[in-house]
Amino acid sequence: MEQSSKRIGKQTVRFQNPVNILSAASTVGPKEGEGPLKEYFDQVITDILYGQKSWEKAESRFVEENMKLAVKKAGMSMEQVDYILCGDLLNQCAGSTFGIRALNRPFFGLFGACSTMGEAMSLGSMLIDGGFAQNVLLGASSHFCSAEKQFRFPLDMGTQRPQTSTWTVTGDGAVVLGRKKGAVRITEVTTGKIVDLGVTDANNMGAAMAPAAADLMMAHFRDTGRGPKDYDLILTGDLGTVGRELVVELLAKEGYYLDQRYTDCGIEIYDPKTQDTHAGGSGCACSAVTFCGYYYPMLLKGKLRRILFIPTGALMSPTTSQQGESIPSIAHGLVIESPEKEEY
Amino acid sequence: MEQSSKRIGKQTVRFQNPVNILSAASTVGPKEGEGPLKEYFDQVITDILYGQKSWEKAESRFVEENMKLAVKKAGMSMEQVDYILCGDLLNQCAGSTFGIRALNRPFFGLFGACSTMGEAMSLGSMLIDGGFAQNVLLGASSHFCSAEKQFRFPLDMGTQRPQTSTWTVTGDGAVVLGRKKGAVRITEVTTGKIVDLGVTDANNMGAAMAPAAADLMMAHFRDTGRGPKDYDLILTGDLGTVGRELVVELLAKEGYYLDQRYTDCGIEIYDPKTQDTHAGGSGCACSAVTFCGYYYPMLLKGKLRRILFIPTGALMSPTTSQQGESIPSIAHGLVIESPEKEEY
Repeated sequence: MEQSSKRIGKQTVRFQNPVNILSAASTVGPKEGEGPLKEYFDQVITDILYGQKSWEKAESRFVEENMKLAVKKAGMSMEQVDYILCGDLLNQCAGSTFGIRALNRPFFGLFGACSTMGEAMSLGSMLIDGGFAQNVLLGASSHFCSAEKQFRFPLDMGTQRPQTSTWTVTGDGAVVLGRKKGAVRITEVTTGKIVDLGVTDANNMGAAMAPAAADLMMAHFRDTGRGPKDYDLILTGDLGTVGRELVVELLAKEGYYLDQRYTDCGIEIYDPKTQDTHAGGSGCACSAVTFCGYYYPMLLKGKLRRILFIPTGALMSPTTSQQGESIPSIAHGLVIESPEKEEY
Repeated sequence: MEQSSKRIGKQTVRFQNPVNILSAASTVGPKEGEGPLKEYFDQVITDILYGQKSWEKAESRFVEENMKLAVKKAGMSMEQVDYILCGDLLNQCAGSTFGIRALNRPFFGLFGACSTMGEAMSLGSMLIDGGFAQNVLLGASSHFCSAEKQFRFPLDMGTQRPQTSTWTVTGDGAVVLGRKKGAVRITEVTTGKIVDLGVTDANNMGAAMAPAAADLMMAHFRDTGRGPKDYDLILTGDLGTVGRELVVELLAKEGYYLDQRYTDCGIEIYDPKTQDTHAGGSGCACSAVTFCGYYYPMLLKGKLRRILFIPTGALMSPTTSQQGESIPSIAHGLVIESPEKEEY
C-alpha cells in the first residue's frame, strides 16, 4: 500500500510546511486565579458567572472573550481567521457554539471531551500544512459549575468528593495557528485511538484515561523512533496524580522510563494542599489554559525546545454511565518545538 | 495578505488532488425502511432496539455495523483506514464514541448537530488532499427514540407534534474517502458560519436552519462564480418542506432562482401522507443515509454529474432552549462530481 507523503507511522504525520503558533491566550476563573499558575494567565475572572445569568452562558463568554484575545495577541483581525475549531464538555457543545456565534467565521465543532485542545491543534495544524488556511483559531473550554451540574450532582448538595476525583477547570485556552513565521511550531501529530480497559468509576477519570495516554505515547515513540529522553517535557492533559502514576507504570512495563520531565497539566494547575482539589485539575480547559498560559511562553523564550503535549479525554456521558457502560478514553499527541534562532 | 493555495474564496477551498469516494453505506431503522427510499438502503433493521438494551446502545450498533459495511464495500480492511471522523446528536457524542470503540482506528470526534455528515466529509477530504491519509472512514448517525428522549419528551407520553416538526431519522450513513481512483469525487468544500436569526421554536427546526443553508449557498455561489443552474442537484440536509420553502424565498431575494433541481433529504426520505412525518425527516442520519443510499449511486451511474450537498445543523441543546436562547444553525457545502469516464 502506497504511503501518503506526510505519514511517518501508523498514527503519526510530520508536517512539511511550518505550522506556527502565532499566539496563545488563557482566561480562567477564580479558583485557577488562586493557584500556582495564577500570574501566568492572561485574564483571571473572579466572578464565576462572568456577569451572565447561568453557568452555561458564563462558559460561552469565557470562549468568546478568550478567542478574541488570542486573535488580538496575534496582531490580526477576526476577518483574517479562515476557520475556528473548538469544543467543550457541555451537551451539544453549547459552550463553544454559543461562544463563537458572534464571531462570524467558518466553523468546525469538535468533540474530544478533555482531549479537545489536542484534537483542535491536530486538525488545525493539518488545515494549515495542507494549504487550506492561512490562519486557524482554535480552543477548548470548561466550567466547574456547568460540568458538575451536568455530569455529577447539583452543586447545592455539597456532595463529598473522593480523593481520586479531579476538579474541573473553569476557563478557555485558545491558540492562533498560521503560516506566517513564528518562533514556536507544531511539527508532528500523533492521533489517538479509543482505549477502554473497563474502568467504570466516574470519580476516577485519571485511571480511566491513563491507558489511552500510555497507548498514545507508545504509538508516538514507535512511529518516530524516539523515546522519553528526546523531549524536554512530556505533558499530559488532565490525568492528575493518580493517572500520572499509572502512566509511569504502564510505560515502564514497555521499557520506557519517564522521569520528572513528565508532568500533567492537572497536577500543575492547582495546589491540592491549599485548594482541596484532590487528584488535580480536569476538563477541556485544563490542558488548554495550562499550555497557553504557562508552557507556550516557555517555548517562546527557548526555555523548552521540544515538548510532547498530550491532552487526554474521557468520552463518557451520564447516560452511558447510568447504563453501566465503562469509560472509553482517548489522547492526542503534538510535538511542539522552539527551534534555535538560526534554524528558522 | 498572501492567499493559501487551495482557497478560492472566503469560505471555499478547491482540492488539487482527487478526493475519491470509494464507498458509501447506509443502515436505517424500520420507519425509513417503509419510506419511499426503502429499496435503496443497504440494510433495513426492523428492530428499533437493534438487539440492544437501550436506544443509545442501539444507535452505537448502527454506527459500528454500518462503518464496517462501508469499509467492506470499499474492498478494504479496517487496518487500511487512517482516520475515523464521525459524530451524532447524543450527549457527549456517545453514539459515535461507543460505536467506533472496538474499531481500533485513530479517531476525531465531531459535533455539527445534523450538519455532521457535511463537516466529516469536509475535514475528511482535507485530510486526503493534504496528504495526511490514504483512506478516511467517516459518518453520522441519529436515532428517533434516543433523540426524542433527550431533546423533547418521554416517548411514552405520546405528545402531539406540530405540523412544522420533523421526524428524526434512525440510522447511520458512512463513506470511505481515498486517494485510490474512483468514479465519484469531492472537488470543493464551502465551510459554514453560525447563523442565528433568533428563532426559538425547537419544533420548527426547518425555519431555524434555513437561513444558515441560504447563507452557505450564497457564499458558495459568490466564491465560485457559479449559480444554481450549474448543478444537476442542490441537496440540503434536513430542512423539510417548511425550511426548503424559506431557502427558496431567501435565495430569490438575492437573485438566485432555485427550481425543482433543489430538494432536501428530509423531504425525500419519508412520505408525509402515509408516514405521519409532518414537515419531513431530520437528524444527523437524515442527510447521511439519503446521500449514501440514494444519491451516491446516482452519481456513480453518471445520472448526476455535479451536485452541491449541504447538510444542515441546529446547534441548540435542551439547556440552552430552557434558558430562552435562540437556535444557532450551520450548514456545510460540498461539490461532488462524477466526471465523464474520459476525464479521469
